[in-house]
Amino acid sequence: MIPRYSRPDMVAIWEPATKFRIWFEIEAHACDAMADLGVIPRENAQAVWKAKDVEFNVARIDEIEAETKHDVIAFLTHLAEHVGSDEARFVHQGMTSSDVLDTCFNIQLTRAADILIADMEGLLAALKRRAFEHKDTLRIGRSHGIHAEPTTMGLTFARFYAEMQRNLRRLHTAREEIATGAISGAVGTFANVDPRVEEHVCAQLGLTPEPISTQVIPRDRHAAFFAALGVVASSIENVAIEIRHMQRTEVLEAAEFFSMGQKGSSAMPHKKNPVLTENLTGLARLVRMAVVPAMENVALWHERDISHSSVERMIGPDATITLDFALARLTNVIDKLLVYPDNMMANMNKFPGLVMSQRVLLALTQAGVSREDAYRLVQRNALKVWETGCDFKTELLNDAEVTAALSPAEIAEKFDLGYHTKHVNTIFARVFGES
Amino acid sequence: MIPRYSRPDMVAIWEPATKFRIWFEIEAHACDAMADLGVIPRENAQAVWKAKDVEFNVARIDEIEAETKHDVIAFLTHLAEHVGSDEARFVHQGMTSSDVLDTCFNIQLTRAADILIADMEGLLAALKRRAFEHKDTLRIGRSHGIHAEPTTMGLTFARFYAEMQRNLRRLHTAREEIATGAISGAVGTFANVDPRVEEHVCAQLGLTPEPISTQVIPRDRHAAFFAALGVVASSIENVAIEIRHMQRTEVLEAAEFFSMGQKGSSAMPHKKNPVLTENLTGLARLVRMAVVPAMENVALWHERDISHSSVERMIGPDATITLDFALARLTNVIDKLLVYPDNMMANMNKFPGLVMSQRVLLALTQAGVSREDAYRLVQRNALKVWETGCDFKTELLNDAEVTAALSPAEIAEKFDLGYHTKHVNTIFARVFGES
Amino acid sequence: MIPRYSRPDMVAIWEPATKFRIWFEIEAHACDAMADLGVIPRENAQAVWKAKDVEFNVARIDEIEAETKHDVIAFLTHLAEHVGSDEARFVHQGMTSSDVLDTCFNIQLTRAADILIADMEGLLAALKRRAFEHKDTLRIGRSHGIHAEPTTMGLTFARFYAEMQRNLRRLHTAREEIATGAISGAVGTFANVDPRVEEHVCAQLGLTPEPISTQVIPRDRHAAFFAALGVVASSIENVAIEIRHMQRTEVLEAAEFFSMGQKGSSAMPHKKNPVLTENLTGLARLVRMAVVPAMENVALWHERDISHSSVERMIGPDATITLDFALARLTNVIDKLLVYPDNMMANMNKFPGLVMSQRVLLALTQAGVSREDAYRLVQRNALKVWETGCDFKTELLNDAEVTAALSPAEIAEKFDLGYHTKHVNTIFARVFGES
Amino acid sequence: MIPRYSRPDMVAIWEPATKFRIWFEIEAHACDAMADLGVIPRENAQAVWKAKDVEFNVARIDEIEAETKHDVIAFLTHLAEHVGSDEARFVHQGMTSSDVLDTCFNIQLTRAADILIADMEGLLAALKRRAFEHKDTLRIGRSHGIHAEPTTMGLTFARFYAEMQRNLRRLHTAREEIATGAISGAVGTFANVDPRVEEHVCAQLGLTPEPISTQVIPRDRHAAFFAALGVVASSIENVAIEIRHMQRTEVLEAAEFFSMGQKGSSAMPHKKNPVLTENLTGLARLVRMAVVPAMENVALWHERDISHSSVERMIGPDATITLDFALARLTNVIDKLLVYPDNMMANMNKFPGLVMSQRVLLALTQAGVSREDAYRLVQRNALKVWETGCDFKTELLNDAEVTAALSPAEIAEKFDLGYHTKHVNTIFARVFGES
Repeated sequence: MIPRYSRPDMVAIWEPATKFRIWFEIEAHACDAMADLGVIPRENAQAVWKAKDVEFNVARIDEIEAETKHDVIAFLTHLAEHVGSDEARFVHQGMTSSDVLDTCFNIQLTRAADILIADMEGLLAALKRRAFEHKDTLRIGRSHGIHAEPTTMGLTFARFYAEMQRNLRRLHTAREEIATGAISGAVGTFANVDPRVEEHVCAQLGLTPEPISTQVIPRDRHAAFFAALGVVASSIENVAIEIRHMQRTEVLEAAEFFSMGQKGSSAMPHKKNPVLTENLTGLARLVRMAVVPAMENVALWHERDISHSSVERMIGPDATITLDFALARLTNVIDKLLVYPDNMMANMNKFPGLVMSQRVLLALTQAGVSREDAYRLVQRNALKVWETGCDFKTELLNDAEVTAALSPAEIAEKFDLGYHTKHVNTIFARVFGES
Repeated sequence: MIPRYSRPDMVAIWEPATKFRIWFEIEAHACDAMADLGVIPRENAQAVWKAKDVEFNVARIDEIEAETKHDVIAFLTHLAEHVGSDEARFVHQGMTSSDVLDTCFNIQLTRAADILIADMEGLLAALKRRAFEHKDTLRIGRSHGIHAEPTTMGLTFARFYAEMQRNLRRLHTAREEIATGAISGAVGTFANVDPRVEEHVCAQLGLTPEPISTQVIPRDRHAAFFAALGVVASSIENVAIEIRHMQRTEVLEAAEFFSMGQKGSSAMPHKKNPVLTENLTGLARLVRMAVVPAMENVALWHERDISHSSVERMIGPDATITLDFALARLTNVIDKLLVYPDNMMANMNKFPGLVMSQRVLLALTQAGVSREDAYRLVQRNALKVWETGCDFKTELLNDAEVTAALSPAEIAEKFDLGYHTKHVNTIFARVFGES
Repeated sequence: MIPRYSRPDMVAIWEPATKFRIWFEIEAHACDAMADLGVIPRENAQAVWKAKDVEFNVARIDEIEAETKHDVIAFLTHLAEHVGSDEARFVHQGMTSSDVLDTCFNIQLTRAADILIADMEGLLAALKRRAFEHKDTLRIGRSHGIHAEPTTMGLTFARFYAEMQRNLRRLHTAREEIATGAISGAVGTFANVDPRVEEHVCAQLGLTPEPISTQVIPRDRHAAFFAALGVVASSIENVAIEIRHMQRTEVLEAAEFFSMGQKGSSAMPHKKNPVLTENLTGLARLVRMAVVPAMENVALWHERDISHSSVERMIGPDATITLDFALARLTNVIDKLLVYPDNMMANMNKFPGLVMSQRVLLALTQAGVSREDAYRLVQRNALKVWETGCDFKTELLNDAEVTAALSPAEIAEKFDLGYHTKHVNTIFARVFGES
Repeated sequence: MIPRYSRPDMVAIWEPATKFRIWFEIEAHACDAMADLGVIPRENAQAVWKAKDVEFNVARIDEIEAETKHDVIAFLTHLAEHVGSDEARFVHQGMTSSDVLDTCFNIQLTRAADILIADMEGLLAALKRRAFEHKDTLRIGRSHGIHAEPTTMGLTFARFYAEMQRNLRRLHTAREEIATGAISGAVGTFANVDPRVEEHVCAQLGLTPEPISTQVIPRDRHAAFFAALGVVASSIENVAIEIRHMQRTEVLEAAEFFSMGQKGSSAMPHKKNPVLTENLTGLARLVRMAVVPAMENVALWHERDISHSSVERMIGPDATITLDFALARLTNVIDKLLVYPDNMMANMNKFPGLVMSQRVLLALTQAGVSREDAYRLVQRNALKVWETGCDFKTELLNDAEVTAALSPAEIAEKFDLGYHTKHVNTIFARVFGES
């Protein structure tokens, strides 16, 4: 976790205090369930709730752990300091540490997912607003970095919106994947703890009982969760790369918002660098790097080994904190992005008229010219524009073989930009349900 | 693609002949739609179907491609050889190569998903059968490779079943992710092709129209698809590792089916090696390695660059073919797995009675002994068993501090194996809906 | 392995015929050594060489393997068909299959490394030639995609040269890593085969004896090998990305060689797309994806398990074939790259004079202006150029605060391009040992 | 960085205070060089050294950075607070932030490499000591987890030693890869700073001048560095997996040192879990996950983009801190590993005599039995032992077909364990240069 790439709400989920709070709730609800089942005395279960509003002393727990070398025992010992040794003596009965640890981890991931989902909704709102704002802002579409045909900036925002909407769905699925809990004992047989304890604890904490666990909750769930974060991160990179391209000196169709007081570099004050989106490109790599170890974590030995634990201690906080930060940063970038429609038009006309070559090609074939001939005619005029900067339409009008097939009016009509935007509303309706 | 790790149905999906067949269908349906819209003559659309049953000549297409350096043009040229140049002249009108290539790729992935889904259903059937067969076959549960508490072999199969059921759901989601098509032209604006052409083609081919595409279908879909395969592969590794452990000489609780005619190694005839599950471990790594490049493919430049293409040419076939093979191999391993219940009991009794230590611990605390004392009492007797192989129950009966808390009958009761299996039916009901 | 991304010499290394030829040589040399040691009769050792020039029948070996389910036994059986059963009966004596398989695999990787090293030398030659050709071709240097200060195209080529020279060294190290052989028996103890057999075989085949092997050669060597390929691939991506940027419509400082007969896309004839370097970007991902599984292969169980084998069957050929192809393709791209110096100058002057801002900043501080003030002065004039396209030098000359610190002559001097290229020779001397 | 997986010396390298100290040294040495060249006044260069023993105020620098949004400017401002504004005004002259940042990062990585190298030397010493201690401790060698032939525990340690010696070499190479510095200005042309400044700074700080840099030091170096760490981590996993296998209940040939006061699990006091090596397995995944993003960092745009920065902020500290901790933990595990030779012998005799089957096979073929017949004879007796636990030697002596080929004395001789250890000294001499 890098402080500069983190936000407090997500960080809070991963703080020791939060963890102990969750542990407490698991243990307390479990006691309630055991009391309901008559396994432990009701008053002992009730006594545990004395610690309901206690702020656990993390330092004290660490101190006990240093001695016992066991985190859950350390916590239980500390809990007994609040509840009373005697009252607390049924806490955790029949349970194994992982019942607490794994259920807690999934609660943390579920809460993290909730934040990510809210982040994503914020990003979607920003993308939608900018999409409608620039629905008709003309811009050249590019394949291979080369001018292709006109499109609009609104369509660019709209496709990012559609991609992020898919990511929203993936985040919901990811949340569902890990919103389970398990209180099933040392090897998952419920030998020492009734399955109804698990059911009660899960119900209280908004989880689904894991249908079958071992000592741990199966790690394919977590692999799927982190894989989903990796996909989201890759989409963030996708948007970031687009903006970085738009901001480069020669293109300059957009720029990250630039406050005049900010120093862009130590030496070149005029440089407005797309540092936020470059940063997002790097953050995407960081989130993505959790995917493979999360998958390597799936194959635990028999009913569990603990190899996954150190991995999760790192990627649990790191991937979620980094992704939360990245989504918020991207939302901010989108919200404030400076868009330069004039530069978009200037770029489109760098090789005057050339972007219409596909239409001319089509018109020629529709006029009866063979595909091969049409291709040749378009190509020979296009190359002139490419090489000399002359105007494509003029060249076509001067090409006898072209005018033999198409009238001047027909040629002129091919250079109407509206031709390319006529289905923008249709696409917007598909994406946003409105246009 | 490694022939020895492939099966014909999945391989067929990726053969050039299949690809050209799909291209044909896309083009032919597109012509129909264009004819419906009055954009091209009906007879030209109908003429295309003359090639309906033609087996396209892959070598001929390659020959044309060698000349034109363009695969779709090569195909169209060849198609015209069947349909007639004149009749074929409206084929592909207003479309761009990617309309065909991307829609085709998604059809191939969708078909691959269908095979993988069927594979998974086969694996689930095998796991379920073996789970019920060994529902009550006692076996020691292990954490950290160390004996913990008794469980049953049926629960082992059942948890793999539950994991694979989740994977089945992930495969369905993955299929849905990539079952889209796009016929939207050079930059996705439908400038030269009506959106209704896309709708018609997709409807005919069982796809959903991509709500917004550029020149290509967005690659976050494919990233999610390959990530799902990576999770499935990791689960395969999980099962494989379990079996490899069970088969090792000292454990020998199970073995891959071994035909007596097979030579296990060039020099040691008696060795029955778990080579299939070791192989599955490697295959899992191969499938998983597609995940990161698929994610790196998401951030294409502007409306497309072609960097993703070479990656997909390899991982498209490789990951699906390998996973199909792996699922089939695992199904076969599960189906025929030799299970040795006697060895399971012998292993459980390696340190006589020790696996019951948790129950004794619990009984002591319930009898009023403090957690710390109970721990100490269990530990000191357990260590004797560990070090000398003596019987745990006998030691407990001879420990005055223990018998001060628990009667001999109470102690004896703790060594009842049925205690550990009492919730097996409950778990089976959760997993299978029956027990 | 994708045929379109492969070249015959590298493919040949991985063909079954090559593998069997290497197996033969290992076995034949091993027989010689055993005869030298008096372990087997000299005439049997000599008899093996009867197969020296035999072209082994791959189909026949496959047929035997289908029956015996063991590849080395199948080969030995087939070898006996050439040498005579009786004469061949000492072949492979005391050896284990992995002695042959692992030594063979390392020979294949070593040969692959030789080709990659030759490829790299070819690439270096091309880069060096282009570097000297464009040593003084002025071009704007960019950070964050934003104009920074002038540099030269020669320096761009030179830095790729230096990077590839490091990669050449890494390839040599990688070759050394895997140029070992092992003939040490079932668990590496040489129980059944004298260590001198290994020494002889390795000496004959250009390998170093593995100091200590188990049944297999340790896989950390292979992990290091594939990691090196991953670094080389990443450098290829680095060069490819540079060229892709240079070729984009708005920049157009270079272009992949374009033969006029080639059709750039099915619809837009004028587009000259950087498809080769886009392809190289994808190929880099493919090579890189071998790195993680190669690392996962290191931790084999005890003296070996066979999980690494399937992985290596795929990544061995795939990563080397793809990298060989990529290096050759990149060499070709560099060799023929169209460089447009005029466009470089035009781009540099997009914001007239602005690229000199750093010099002016420095001059102001040297003239006694505080860093903060100098920064402010440069920034305010730079922003005018940025926003209006006016000339930076003129603005400075009109800024009283600037001219209070610098004379017009001093200001003019800051716009001398030679200032930026004065150390090009020094850098070339560092990189090439000449300038 | 996870505190529990970190050690103070490595952590210190990555602390802000260390970073600022290094920045100071770079700037101060650069000033010296500029004074030598007559570019700045000598007294200003000398004045900078007034801050030689200053402990920079990290909080103060952060405060300035919050305002200026630029870390190097913040530091320089703070430096001026110590040195005096006027005296400090030539500091950083002609340099760019990356000159400082990149050179500093490489110094940190170099120091990290020094610690890792020392760690590795410690691990080698432990492995060597244990190897000689157990040079002759007999143990069954295993392939596929199945008993193969006898080996010794010393050979196991020796092969880990040889592997780690290769890793030591890789760490030295990795150190060399990143022990470079660059003071070359905004795009690497030395336009504003003489190359001799770079030479002086590098000489003072133990670095090699980067032959050609852009704004940054090329990232292929860092990719190679982190790839080397990934290989080392994979070797750690290799050793960890071996120990985890040895410690499992059924094998119990070794165990991590267990202090009696330690509670192995919250519920099962007798369990001695291999938690350290399981943890090392996870830590290996964590180190390895830095490899791919480090490779993705290579392809920066033009003379630099800043996408690599966030990645390095995380993987720089995390990968080195985790690997340092893992090497130290592994050294400790090896040093104190409990080895159980009696259990090794008991395991070897699980199927009495069976591990000698390869020798018998060889003896039969040498006695003139065909390979196929010998195989059959060995196999039929071996399977009896496998299935009934009878004694292999006895079975052979009772098999008329066997005794027709081998005398009882010849058969007995095949069961001499010394046969398998006769080359241990040779191997030790290869590995350690002594035996």
